[in-house]
Amino acid sequence: MVRIDRERFRAAFERYSAIGATDNGGLHRLALSAADGEARDRFVADLESLGLSVRIDEVGNVFGRREGADPDAAPILVGSHLDSQPYGGRFDGQLGVLTALETLRSFEDANLVTERPIEIVNWTNEEGARFKPALMGSGAYVGTHDVDVVLETADADGTTVAEALSEIGYRGESPCGPTETPHAYLELHVEQGPVLEEREREIGVVEGILGMAWLEATVRGDADHAGPSPMHTRSDALVAAADVVTGVRRLAGRLADDAVTTVGEFRVEPNSVNVIPDRATFTVDLRSYDEDVVAAGVERVDAELAAACEREGTTYELDELWRIPHTEFSPWVCDAIEAAAEAVGRSSVRMIGGAGHDASYLADLTDAGLVFVPSVDGKTHNEREFTKWTDAVAGADAFAEAVRRLAGAPAASDGRETA
Amino acid sequence: MVRIDRERFRAAFERYSAIGATDNGGLHRLALSAADGEARDRFVADLESLGLSVRIDEVGNVFGRREGADPDAAPILVGSHLDSQPYGGRFDGQLGVLTALETLRSFEDANLVTERPIEIVNWTNEEGARFKPALMGSGAYVGTHDVDVVLETADADGTTVAEALSEIGYRGESPCGPTETPHAYLELHVEQGPVLEEREREIGVVEGILGMAWLEATVRGDADHAGPSPMHTRSDALVAAADVVTGVRRLAGRLADDAVTTVGEFRVEPNSVNVIPDRATFTVDLRSYDEDVVAAGVERVDAELAAACEREGTTYELDELWRIPHTEFSPWVCDAIEAAAEAVGRSSVRMIGGAGHDASYLADLTDAGLVFVPSVDGKTHNEREFTKWTDAVAGADAFAEAVRRLAGAPAASDGRETA
Repeated sequence: MVRIDRERFRAAFERYSAIGATDNGGLHRLALSAADGEARDRFVADLESLGLSVRIDEVGNVFGRREGADPDAAPILVGSHLDSQPYGGRFDGQLGVLTALETLRSFEDANLVTERPIEIVNWTNEEGARFKPALMGSGAYVGTHDVDVVLETADADGTTVAEALSEIGYRGESPCGPTETPHAYLELHVEQGPVLEEREREIGVVEGILGMAWLEATVRGDADHAGPSPMHTRSDALVAAADVVTGVRRLAGRLADDAVTTVGEFRVEPNSVNVIPDRATFTVDLRSYDEDVVAAGVERVDAELAAACEREGTTYELDELWRIPHTEFSPWVCDAIEAAAEAVGRSSVRMIGGAGHDASYLADLTDAGLVFVPSVDGKTHNEREFTKWTDAVAGADAFAEAVRRLAGAPAASDGRETA
Repeated sequence: MVRIDRERFRAAFERYSAIGATDNGGLHRLALSAADGEARDRFVADLESLGLSVRIDEVGNVFGRREGADPDAAPILVGSHLDSQPYGGRFDGQLGVLTALETLRSFEDANLVTERPIEIVNWTNEEGARFKPALMGSGAYVGTHDVDVVLETADADGTTVAEALSEIGYRGESPCGPTETPHAYLELHVEQGPVLEEREREIGVVEGILGMAWLEATVRGDADHAGPSPMHTRSDALVAAADVVTGVRRLAGRLADDAVTTVGEFRVEPNSVNVIPDRATFTVDLRSYDEDVVAAGVERVDAELAAACEREGTTYELDELWRIPHTEFSPWVCDAIEAAAEAVGRSSVRMIGGAGHDASYLADLTDAGLVFVPSVDGKTHNEREFTKWTDAVAGADAFAEAVRRLAGAPAASDGRETA
């Protein structure tokens, strides 16, 4: 069994958290921003200090490789992401990268030689806040996203991913994608929900992730002066869109127990105090483990739009930006996480996650697993996001032990057997 | 009786309309923008061609003075504004300035010497789209707005009125305010509503303007991840704000026959597809001729916010940005407009206007009048805003005749008597 160095782990967390820190204790570290570049520089320096060979791929994913005893064995890949929401917390993503880093540091301290190589990774643009879609780097890595399309994707100011990568010096030369398929992928992440806290467990063994659809709706009405336009002559795009927002709120409760529905982006034009809006654009985020429920939800959003536009005399378009099926993680990796938690004396529970993670894409490529640690009040994507440090330590203890088992003691040939 | 030169009037309209023209036949000529500067330069050149003495005041209001026979008589002030909404039409404001300009040109053609001097004016920032509040130049002129406060008012990018004026060369040296109180103020404007079209009249004799309140509401909830946050744990600022938007839509119908209520600006934060919004900010524009109705409306908006926030677990603030009582225009100036319309063979109707105009502020200072011409479908603040050219000509004919009557034939000593 390997024990992490709690002081060093904490110090690394504080050091990284200063990069892109907000006044309210959160992070403003949008993907490929200057702050993201600074965090990456620190990460690369830390990997090099550990003697790892560093590789940066075309879309900016950063890998560090620690060799194992068996030169022919496929590696165990571990990591998460260093980018943040516009005003996000310090734990989302970063804690997973630093847990993986501390795992490798503790292996080095213990002179532990694993059977398999271990690769650590920082995925580009997990959040999707600046460039869409989210999970960009891991999606490109597993082949779901076309690398050329990714590189040409622009942010709201028209800057492309390729330009932003060059600006911070992370447009790597290594082709994006696995040189060899990892034996397994393991990621630690904050839960971002209330389940672990409600059930009073330290470790979440995530068996799957909700399926999801992202929609974008545009409602068009007629711009007109707010004063001399009688109410009966109006076609107000905002009024129709607001109707849909409240409809989407109710929708979750009609669809299924586990369904959640959110309007996160919302804009009106011309956005002038005395002009009736002629255009409202908004997104809908719709999730459930049952893909039929997601499909039914998309149809219901369309029906809400049709009804609201009929009432207000407006028109609409509804585009599907993204749809992903639910994720099922590897049963034997889940077993390894559960056994590792037990071995280090940490309580655990099996659960379904609500948010997409890089691990979701990796599950398409190989056997993947995801470890959750508790989020206070379930809060995330928020500067008040918080995980108790004792819980972060418990998670890192279990994670390091799980990686040790997956990577194999020198005597064992397969993570499956050592677990 | 004076007749305007229709060809010249039309040519001037086309020439000015090319400045800040949009692809859809509208105008993008925000107050004190480069396009506004270009329109002002053209205006100053046109005034100078007429031999008028030009004066620019501290807030950029541009005046041109045509002397009358009586050196001691107070002037008749005529004009409107050249700035536009972000994507406004070509008639709103501009038609009034150009009607006043054509009036003076036709007086010059006819070698008409009026008893009183006539001053023509282009008011700064009538629209309030870039800098708030609207009616900025006329409000400063009549003393409602403090000049220093106006000059320090910043747009969304932090540029102040003073800086923007300097940039386009319109930070004048003349003190803002009347050197002598005008005998009367007269403005022509497009109706921006459906009344003249519905009643099939060419000229609206505006007896008053609705009173108004502008409110700004901020709703605060909790940002959280759209996936792992169960619906029952959410405090979604957008959902609460959307509830208020539909409430405000219904409110007009509960308040009074003439009440209109509009949410024109609307923003959410952090405005990210998979984050529950923690902040929604929006404006409410509320109008009625009856000031008690406006006051009751403000209270109802507060009640809607309280109810919506109670339902959603959010909090709110409601600020009043602006409240103006209804305007009553001068009965004798209304009589003069009506008589002038009749004299030039144009049909007219007395009516109440829905939108604030520079004439509203001038009515605080002197006897003021406002002439409306029809807006097709009542549309305005919209690139599709349109007034038939025959209606524009009819309006200019009546306006020129009204100004001639107000300014007095050389034999008469007072507009009241000549009318």
